[in-house]
Amino acid sequence: MKKRIFTPGPTPLPEIVKLSQAEDIIHHRTQQFSEVLKEVSQGLKYVFQTNNPVLTFAASGTGAMEGAVANLLSSGDKVLVIRGGKFGERWAEICQSFGIEVTNIDIEWGTAVDPSIVEKKLKENQDIRAVFTQLVETSTGVVYDIESIAKIVGKTSAILVVDAISGLGAQPLSTDEWGIDVVVGGSQKALMLPPGLSFVTLSQRAWKNVENSNLPRYYWDFKKAKKSLDKKQTPYTPAVSLICALKESLRLIKEEGWENVINRHSVLARATREAISALGLSIFGHPASNVLTSVLVPSGVNEKELRKKMQDKYGVLVAGGQAKLSGKIIRIAHLGWMDSLDVITAISALEMSLKDLGYRINLGEGVRAAEEVLRG
Amino acid sequence: MKKRIFTPGPTPLPEIVKLSQAEDIIHHRTQQFSEVLKEVSQGLKYVFQTNNPVLTFAASGTGAMEGAVANLLSSGDKVLVIRGGKFGERWAEICQSFGIEVTNIDIEWGTAVDPSIVEKKLKENQDIRAVFTQLVETSTGVVYDIESIAKIVGKTSAILVVDAISGLGAQPLSTDEWGIDVVVGGSQKALMLPPGLSFVTLSQRAWKNVENSNLPRYYWDFKKAKKSLDKKQTPYTPAVSLICALKESLRLIKEEGWENVINRHSVLARATREAISALGLSIFGHPASNVLTSVLVPSGVNEKELRKKMQDKYGVLVAGGQAKLSGKIIRIAHLGWMDSLDVITAISALEMSLKDLGYRINLGEGVRAAEEVLRG
Repeated sequence: MKKRIFTPGPTPLPEIVKLSQAEDIIHHRTQQFSEVLKEVSQGLKYVFQTNNPVLTFAASGTGAMEGAVANLLSSGDKVLVIRGGKFGERWAEICQSFGIEVTNIDIEWGTAVDPSIVEKKLKENQDIRAVFTQLVETSTGVVYDIESIAKIVGKTSAILVVDAISGLGAQPLSTDEWGIDVVVGGSQKALMLPPGLSFVTLSQRAWKNVENSNLPRYYWDFKKAKKSLDKKQTPYTPAVSLICALKESLRLIKEEGWENVINRHSVLARATREAISALGLSIFGHPASNVLTSVLVPSGVNEKELRKKMQDKYGVLVAGGQAKLSGKIIRIAHLGWMDSLDVITAISALEMSLKDLGYRINLGEGVRAAEEVLRG
Repeated sequence: MKKRIFTPGPTPLPEIVKLSQAEDIIHHRTQQFSEVLKEVSQGLKYVFQTNNPVLTFAASGTGAMEGAVANLLSSGDKVLVIRGGKFGERWAEICQSFGIEVTNIDIEWGTAVDPSIVEKKLKENQDIRAVFTQLVETSTGVVYDIESIAKIVGKTSAILVVDAISGLGAQPLSTDEWGIDVVVGGSQKALMLPPGLSFVTLSQRAWKNVENSNLPRYYWDFKKAKKSLDKKQTPYTPAVSLICALKESLRLIKEEGWENVINRHSVLARATREAISALGLSIFGHPASNVLTSVLVPSGVNEKELRKKMQDKYGVLVAGGQAKLSGKIIRIAHLGWMDSLDVITAISALEMSLKDLGYRINLGEGVRAAEEVLRG
């Protein structure tokens, strides 16, 4: 059966990315690899919209998140964590593992943090060393107003650390212009790669924190990674095949243009949301991101059965809800190597599956609404 | 130019491994991936020669080394590290990063540790919690007598942690039979994969250490990884494409048979050493492993020029010496997806390159000596 993947990571791979992985392996301590790394470094700066170096780790996104905590803080430091879903919780868990004192801003899952609450908390706790948040909270699909939060945090001595793992390359994010101190990314999202690489970039201000941090780290040692990168190398054996594939995906992004890539994601997201509304279904979470659309499973429909029908009968894989949202939502990603007709296939599979399960909808209405958006 | 790679990682990739990476990505939270992980888990146990679970991390080998330190020890613990090269030094560095008190057994690079010294040190320091060593010290090519060391350590309350990153699947290593507590492996060696995965297995005794360890870890949390593995999952997004490729390479190993794979490496190593001797060159390090042969660069020949000649004129990439051995040796790996005629190509390129550089050798004498061994 032909399979289509609409999960918020992994995302579909362009053919050139797949094929590049089938090439003979190259050795990392060679001029050849250094040239790849040089090109990749430029491309990553472009995607992160920064002039600072972007470090690459052989690890999935959580690895670079741990790296950020281990390199930026010292034991007993106080931090603020915005918890609006599973990945906000992850920041708090990592910090706690490292003996960091965490103050949480708990927001209802499916809502975005109000930047003024961040401002208030920072005023109340002037010894906060860092604020940890997401660009897009992947478990809900909600996007946070990072630009405003960055302005607020920038006025304090705290640094802002943004998990942009799912949002990078899909959601507007201007690292330098917005004054974000630390941004973390991952390979298996809009970067159109398999999982296995994670990224992090630091502002000058954040690098000062690294100098003073006393938490243990070795594999995640940012200073060592930066020193190696200056010489177009990595401290330890890099994930060579994934980095060579990254070169190809970054070329695709450069060819299309970063603004156009972001805009494409925005259009696909809007088309999906219009389709969902036209089908009389409700979108979960606000404001919805460019990454994925969370759809409330309508009463009378079993979430597991719906996803199973979509997958088994139509070959379409969407994600379910995580943790407390399990069984309540499905998450349809429009992320990475996706175009208008991909969205149509996802909506069509949803329509037919709902009908198959006896839910009353008018076939084609979602697709029609999506088409209205997609034809521009 | 046709290129041949003889470095001790990355090693050449079998076609099926390369092609499997070019397949469409699958999602990790699916039955399909769980089945891959189930097969891979069985295969890894076979290669590690253990009945205990083998954990897989999206990281290069150093990552799992750090994981071993962070999961097995507590701050202020005392450990013994055997330092006979760059990777012995790495154990000491990682331990020190985590506030562990390290006693080093420093041996001359190119020699193996005398197990009786380990015994003596453990008697002198009865509060040693763990002994860290290599199976093969990749920077010199020397293999250590892990079986004897395991017997000694097994009589104490300390645990034995073996970095088998380069040796796994090339050098005899019977984790359970020899009573080794912890073994670390990596993907880009005899497992015939690109870099990006690392592995670790723990004995029942070692798992008890994990219970009592207080060092910070999150990404490397072994307990969490084991709990997930029991459900055929991983705690965080795994390196899906590499794990699918691993399924293929483990199948190749199973097909050939572990003993045969080890034996093949042993024959290729012996053929290489015979060739080197027949050319009147000296092997560096003793006892030489099945992983690679270190060759002392003869006087009158510049190491950089030799490797450059081999690479530029004959397309053969070998490794140089690391750290204090830089410029003094070349390292020819016979590791992973390698057969008799691969060894012939490496020796032939070495012969011709030496001749090209004006060094007096008789062309073909190395190849002849290798052939004597290889034809069995």
